[in-house]
Amino acid sequence: MAALRQRLVDFAAARRWEPFHTPKNLAAALSVEAGELLEIFQWLTPEQAAAVMSEPERAHRVRDEVADVLAYLLQFCTAVGVDPLEALAAKIERNELRFPVSADAVGAGEREAPEDAADVNSDVSDQPL
Amino acid sequence: MAALRQRLVDFAAARRWEPFHTPKNLAAALSVEAGELLEIFQWLTPEQAAAVMSEPERAHRVRDEVADVLAYLLQFCTAVGVDPLEALAAKIERNELRFPVSADAVGAGEREAPEDAADVNSDVSDQPL
Amino acid sequence: MAALRQRLVDFAAARRWEPFHTPKNLAAALSVEAGELLEIFQWLTPEQAAAVMSEPERAHRVRDEVADVLAYLLQFCTAVGVDPLEALAAKIERNELRFPVSADAVGAGEREAPEDAADVNSDVSDQPL
Amino acid sequence: MAALRQRLVDFAAARRWEPFHTPKNLAAALSVEAGELLEIFQWLTPEQAAAVMSEPERAHRVRDEVADVLAYLLQFCTAVGVDPLEALAAKIERNELRFPVSADAVGAGEREAPEDAADVNSDVSDQPL
Repeated sequence: MAALRQRLVDFAAARRWEPFHTPKNLAAALSVEAGELLEIFQWLTPEQAAAVMSEPERAHRVRDEVADVLAYLLQFCTAVGVDPLEALAAKIERNELRFPVSADAVGAGEREAPEDAADVNSDVSDQPL
Repeated sequence: MAALRQRLVDFAAARRWEPFHTPKNLAAALSVEAGELLEIFQWLTPEQAAAVMSEPERAHRVRDEVADVLAYLLQFCTAVGVDPLEALAAKIERNELRFPVSADAVGAGEREAPEDAADVNSDVSDQPL
Repeated sequence: MAALRQRLVDFAAARRWEPFHTPKNLAAALSVEAGELLEIFQWLTPEQAAAVMSEPERAHRVRDEVADVLAYLLQFCTAVGVDPLEALAAKIERNELRFPVSADAVGAGEREAPEDAADVNSDVSDQPL
Repeated sequence: MAALRQRLVDFAAARRWEPFHTPKNLAAALSVEAGELLEIFQWLTPEQAAAVMSEPERAHRVRDEVADVLAYLLQFCTAVGVDPLEALAAKIERNELRFPVSADAVGAGEREAPEDAADVNSDVSDQPL
């Protein structure tokens, strides 16, 4: 991942695109690309969505949008000086405390969707994973 | 990254959240979290945005949302069987062909924003990085 | 709607928020709020989603996010000088030509999802309604 | 607006698209279209963004995406039975209480961005307009 991150830096530098790569612009671009990934799925039934990779054209679009999201995420992290893997490791640790297994895994029938767990905490910046 | 990806799989499995982790739901969640990252920046001036990490509370929110975006991206990739690093490497190679350096780096004064380069191709699924 | 649009203008003016209400910031805010509306639904099953308004707290959130999306859409339209109803009327007319009824309504069994109709045109800025 | 809302209902019915128009799918589609509107602005400088409507092709895209956002918002409201104008009027009234003019309009130099006002309340579902 570090190598890809460097290639993205070099790619933008060679094209003199750095002035456009402000944190705010990159956050916007990341959000736009995440929307394009969602667009692939928006009208699909659960069955069609589950089989998305068995259709060559859709599979290509999925890979392409995954690449765009990751590219902008890495470029954003470069712009603000955040290590994404470190941030994720820290978040998983916090979530392991916030969502202890014993409380949730009481059985599929009675359990709540992850969204409801988050509702209890009424803290949207702290969603479960 | 592979280790974090596995921890996310285990985390969801221990809480029996897999039924919620369909490709469509994860693409939606990824888009929602990318929006929350953008939310931090939406009213900031360029100066405030550039200094976002020097403010402890905002810096924490940035790291937190980066973690959420990466988490859902990895979980999405697990759900559809895509290798995100491989997808990104392939995309960079395609973009190196699509946006040759000689054509773009003619000088900051005359060059166009990356968005305009994309406009020429009128192919939104193939944005420049 | 014109009256609400004026109230939004007055509200922002009284608080001296106009400098923040650039087209770019408002487009970002609109996208963020649309993400918050989607967040309500992201983990819901089709049955839970269909019953979303029968749960008072969720129903309140839905109305709240609808209001936010409409508010930012109207403020964006004020900022760029676009009449949203006129734009929508023009779009419906274009779509009536692009998606003629005879071609699509051949029977539920054989027809494609609207997304596929759009794919054929490979023009994302021209999604079906 | 009521007339346009009815035309959208008829348009979808004539093409037998209602099964796709679940609240969850429409919330996803709304978010995708809001992202497409933001895409137009993502790399623009403040000057370019302010002049967006003086460029015919961009102006067309803006009107087109505004129409798409409004269309999906109205279709979403139809699907969940919400009156968007009523929801917005109620929200403006709540915000007039939450953001009293006296506290905010102390002078452009000292005032905070609207986002900061929201931060104080740490309640993302209740953003200022």
